[in-house]
Amino acid sequence: MADYLYGINPVGEAFQGVARKPLELLVVNGDRNERLNKLVEQAEQRQLKISYFSRKELDRLAGNSQHQGVLLRLTAFNYADFSSLLHQWQKSGDAAFFLVLDGITDPHNFGAMLRSAEVAGCKGVIVAKDRSCPVSSVVEKSAAGALAHVPLCQVTNLSRTIEELKKAGVWCYGLAGEAGANELYSVDLTGNLALVVGSEGKGLRPNIRNHCDGLLSIPMAGQVNSLNASVAAGIALFEAVRQGRTKRK
Amino acid sequence: MADYLYGINPVGEAFQGVARKPLELLVVNGDRNERLNKLVEQAEQRQLKISYFSRKELDRLAGNSQHQGVLLRLTAFNYADFSSLLHQWQKSGDAAFFLVLDGITDPHNFGAMLRSAEVAGCKGVIVAKDRSCPVSSVVEKSAAGALAHVPLCQVTNLSRTIEELKKAGVWCYGLAGEAGANELYSVDLTGNLALVVGSEGKGLRPNIRNHCDGLLSIPMAGQVNSLNASVAAGIALFEAVRQGRTKRK
Repeated sequence: MADYLYGINPVGEAFQGVARKPLELLVVNGDRNERLNKLVEQAEQRQLKISYFSRKELDRLAGNSQHQGVLLRLTAFNYADFSSLLHQWQKSGDAAFFLVLDGITDPHNFGAMLRSAEVAGCKGVIVAKDRSCPVSSVVEKSAAGALAHVPLCQVTNLSRTIEELKKAGVWCYGLAGEAGANELYSVDLTGNLALVVGSEGKGLRPNIRNHCDGLLSIPMAGQVNSLNASVAAGIALFEAVRQGRTKRK
Repeated sequence: MADYLYGINPVGEAFQGVARKPLELLVVNGDRNERLNKLVEQAEQRQLKISYFSRKELDRLAGNSQHQGVLLRLTAFNYADFSSLLHQWQKSGDAAFFLVLDGITDPHNFGAMLRSAEVAGCKGVIVAKDRSCPVSSVVEKSAAGALAHVPLCQVTNLSRTIEELKKAGVWCYGLAGEAGANELYSVDLTGNLALVVGSEGKGLRPNIRNHCDGLLSIPMAGQVNSLNASVAAGIALFEAVRQGRTKRK
């Protein structure tokens, strides 16, 4: 399976990526600007297949006319398998530590969360297939190399995945700001843990909340009643790290 | 003093902002696309002054040709005065809690940090004048309204500001990943606190480090050896929040 991406910057960044391999550069026939010529040069240097198309054909392939005369065909991101991830953890003898994302659509936030998860020592990140942005070059860049080290799973039914985690002995805590949630600092996070984080605007879906073992809230002292989603996830991940380190002492 | 910004999206977003007041819309003479016409309509609705210029004149005013036919003149951001901030805190009788930023150039990170500082209950945010991105509409948007609630100061000499804070009885801790730093969780952050955070790429300048009372590090368990700057700042700010809440119990 292959993906396409388009535009001079995204294609240039994809050349730097590691999670997806470039397969073919599709370039407009005729007049090209300097930046586009530079991309063609880079493609030649890496002996990438280069094909030429009319602007109209590129419009059709990109699905719009925003491609700036260039498309890149590249391998799809190689997601990890959830059952293998679970099995691998069970074999390891370590405490579980997973980040579960419900509907993260902003690529900068998604990348920053992957980075935080890797730095915090998570064993894997799990996203819902239909509610998550794809692993784009922006995600890769924001993840700062984390995708080479932390397995990323895509699951079709997140509620079912949470139930499977619970059955395997993992405590699933949802991050939510609402009344009834426990203050983050008052909950023991040192056992087998999956932290479930919702989208920037809407938070966790009600259905996902109901499947969680409990809800955690970050105390808010000011007038602005929410944090950036990747900042909130980072605070919760590192509270689990802190508790683990304090316990071991 | 007034600022200019340019481009259809930035101007449209500036219409939504609160920290800076639009003063005049500068539009290209002649052919305009639909999005540009919509901006002109919005400007008319808010009875904003509208002036028309040739593309060449706009190029000159913007300093480049990336303006898409539109510039907005708007009031400069109204920074708080550092001495007043210090005085206000001293009068309040509360513990000090400041975020000091050394060279945050990414507007998304800057905005997210302002948001985190407000949510954590900081009394003010202090930035170095020559090493910080201006308060743009992107910053405002990422700050999610925080700029209406948390004072933002700009200082010309950050080392001197840190010395002034120390003289006023504030502990200044720099966030830094290097050897010799104390693990974040091992340091008492419940007193008068200023947290000093460096740029995404380079961290704190050596000169700034030397002025800090101590350096704090976030433990890193993975292969990626750093966090997104706004995530790191959020983790440190909320560790101070956690310690404060635990102490009061």
